[in-house]
Amino acid sequence: MNVLVINCGSSSLKYQLINSDSEEVLAKGLCERIGIDGRLVYQKEGMDKEITEAPMPTHKEAIQMVLDALHNPKSGAVKDLSEIDAVGHRVVHGGEKFAKSVVLTEEVLAKVEECNELAPLHNPANLIGIRACQDLMPNVPMVGVFDTAFHQTMPRKAFLYGLPYEYYEKYKVRRYGFHGTSHSFVSKACAEYLKLDLKNSKIIVAHLGNGASVSAVLNGECVDTSMGLTPLEGLVMGTRSGDIDPAIMEFIAKKENLDIDGVMNVLNKKSGVEGLSGVSSDFRDLEAAYNEGNPRAIDACEVFAYRVAKYIGAYVAAMNGVDAIAFTAGIGENTSFIREKIVSYLGYLGIKLDKKTNDVRGVEEIISTPDSKVTVCVIPTNEELAICRETVALVK
Amino acid sequence: MNVLVINCGSSSLKYQLINSDSEEVLAKGLCERIGIDGRLVYQKEGMDKEITEAPMPTHKEAIQMVLDALHNPKSGAVKDLSEIDAVGHRVVHGGEKFAKSVVLTEEVLAKVEECNELAPLHNPANLIGIRACQDLMPNVPMVGVFDTAFHQTMPRKAFLYGLPYEYYEKYKVRRYGFHGTSHSFVSKACAEYLKLDLKNSKIIVAHLGNGASVSAVLNGECVDTSMGLTPLEGLVMGTRSGDIDPAIMEFIAKKENLDIDGVMNVLNKKSGVEGLSGVSSDFRDLEAAYNEGNPRAIDACEVFAYRVAKYIGAYVAAMNGVDAIAFTAGIGENTSFIREKIVSYLGYLGIKLDKKTNDVRGVEEIISTPDSKVTVCVIPTNEELAICRETVALVK
Repeated sequence: MNVLVINCGSSSLKYQLINSDSEEVLAKGLCERIGIDGRLVYQKEGMDKEITEAPMPTHKEAIQMVLDALHNPKSGAVKDLSEIDAVGHRVVHGGEKFAKSVVLTEEVLAKVEECNELAPLHNPANLIGIRACQDLMPNVPMVGVFDTAFHQTMPRKAFLYGLPYEYYEKYKVRRYGFHGTSHSFVSKACAEYLKLDLKNSKIIVAHLGNGASVSAVLNGECVDTSMGLTPLEGLVMGTRSGDIDPAIMEFIAKKENLDIDGVMNVLNKKSGVEGLSGVSSDFRDLEAAYNEGNPRAIDACEVFAYRVAKYIGAYVAAMNGVDAIAFTAGIGENTSFIREKIVSYLGYLGIKLDKKTNDVRGVEEIISTPDSKVTVCVIPTNEELAICRETVALVK
Repeated sequence: MNVLVINCGSSSLKYQLINSDSEEVLAKGLCERIGIDGRLVYQKEGMDKEITEAPMPTHKEAIQMVLDALHNPKSGAVKDLSEIDAVGHRVVHGGEKFAKSVVLTEEVLAKVEECNELAPLHNPANLIGIRACQDLMPNVPMVGVFDTAFHQTMPRKAFLYGLPYEYYEKYKVRRYGFHGTSHSFVSKACAEYLKLDLKNSKIIVAHLGNGASVSAVLNGECVDTSMGLTPLEGLVMGTRSGDIDPAIMEFIAKKENLDIDGVMNVLNKKSGVEGLSGVSSDFRDLEAAYNEGNPRAIDACEVFAYRVAKYIGAYVAAMNGVDAIAFTAGIGENTSFIREKIVSYLGYLGIKLDKKTNDVRGVEEIISTPDSKVTVCVIPTNEELAICRETVALVK
């Protein structure tokens, strides 16, 4: 069957049409500047990108344009819209309500809406995308795939903060974790690639992209992850601070004369390796600056790698051991010098890096030596394919 | 020589008079409710406590009362105040200015004052105590011993946060760490007790008291620690939250209609195991409730121990291995079921707990089995003795 995968933000929307049998991407692209002016990028498999500037006052017009492009007689991926059998929607926050993907009924959508306050920037946009698709494809089944769902197996000791318990009871303040679709996909792919028995394995997934998180996957279930109530906690990211002393917020607010929103803006958008380095949030730029000896770029790379290594170390303790460590996402798949830095901390686990195979980019590869006691590998993530698979499993 | 050790807070003051040769405590006690009404507790070695209620409008009157008690003809520890050869002051924050203890000259005190804004609740009180002692004992040498000093050896990758670099340049926002006098004392005592070569060792110190922190000590030097700019970061403590998603502050502020100060008050005073359990910040109460099956006390103990284990795991990665783990301070020295829980995560390091010796309270003891690959031990801390030793080393 053909599954349209939709990842809808507040003013943008990414999509892929995937044939679930062959797992081929038939077409993909994105809509940008929705509600501002509007721009569609569309690319049929094997063809060049087509870019169309056209007004998109709401997500409905944006999705209409995607559907038009998908069955456009010239470059369409399908002849008729009836060939789209299902839609899989990425939904950021499922709170404690969703531990699995789910067919989107009215009842379910009401529950998703109840999670809005946990992700006020993301969930409402996801819902707008879902509603627009429902309007335009009223008879096509829709599935919601939650970024948080995979992490719902975390035990209480991992998801409770050291806060007044009433905040959990009243407001559901707890660790949720994100990138769950990727952590789930990669941990399964890792076990398969390494021929581990997933149900009897200890895998750490380092999803290192512009947003970045680490998770501990014990016997196929997530037992801890570095992001928290929101995607701000944990690793140092492209522009996000990750973990800081919470008292720093008060300190900065007073020094810079900012309110809480102002501090949050700094922590989310002006921090991370970009804020540290003053160079860029992109590790291609950072690597170049690092190699030129730029001291702040060196600081940023060292801080980034060290934080990842400490999380890996913590999660080895959380699982009382580890069988495999999988690197994924932009930096995890492509930035060998960062992988090398991270692995350099882990010799005590009997891990030995294979510098030759570590020179890989974007494909499955074992990057530890054959005699390494823990296998370290690169496993490319594919969240769209994961959403497609989840969707098919529910509507087939 | 006889050293008076002073730990001065905003409305209280703890003191010990120590003979540095025998390292005996000649007398000790505290002043409470300074500036409110006033209460002196004094205890000469081998004698009962004496409690005197008397007005202490300022720290100067409080210290005068301490000095009077110390050479009181009946229960005094010395015959004449000239027998007090030096005073050692605990100072909370030395910023980046003090990596060692220092004789307190006018120049030094000006520098200490410059650190006030990093610890606005503590440093000014420490300075008031120093000034009062100088007034009353103008010819006695005074030494400042900083809670942060031991951690000044941390490398940049450990002390830099993922924040805009200008916050470090302009405001010195970075990880400092606290309990440094204890981490220094205990790591040295641990190496001595276990006959390790301190200069060639990897030691993790878990200082678990009402305030709690972990440090990684490589070859005798601190390379990382869990407290940060302030003593709020890191472990879940008695009433402090430790690490949380920074975005939780915004969330709680909005939900509870609090400003940043209000949220900080919750994180410092109403969180931690007390907030989680609703029982107490004291592990004696928590252990009782845990044993009665109180589910929130169980949560609090599990969360506490799990967080400590993760920090230990992270610091093993930071040092690429570990030779010894030392538990210290109230909980670390006395609460065997918490130590057992923490150590239960560390089997992958070849650590085996000796349940029999783990039943110890407050004395040096090895609590791992002889064939454990890493030695785990209890090492009682003694910050006053550490301050006494530092003082003697500088004034002798």
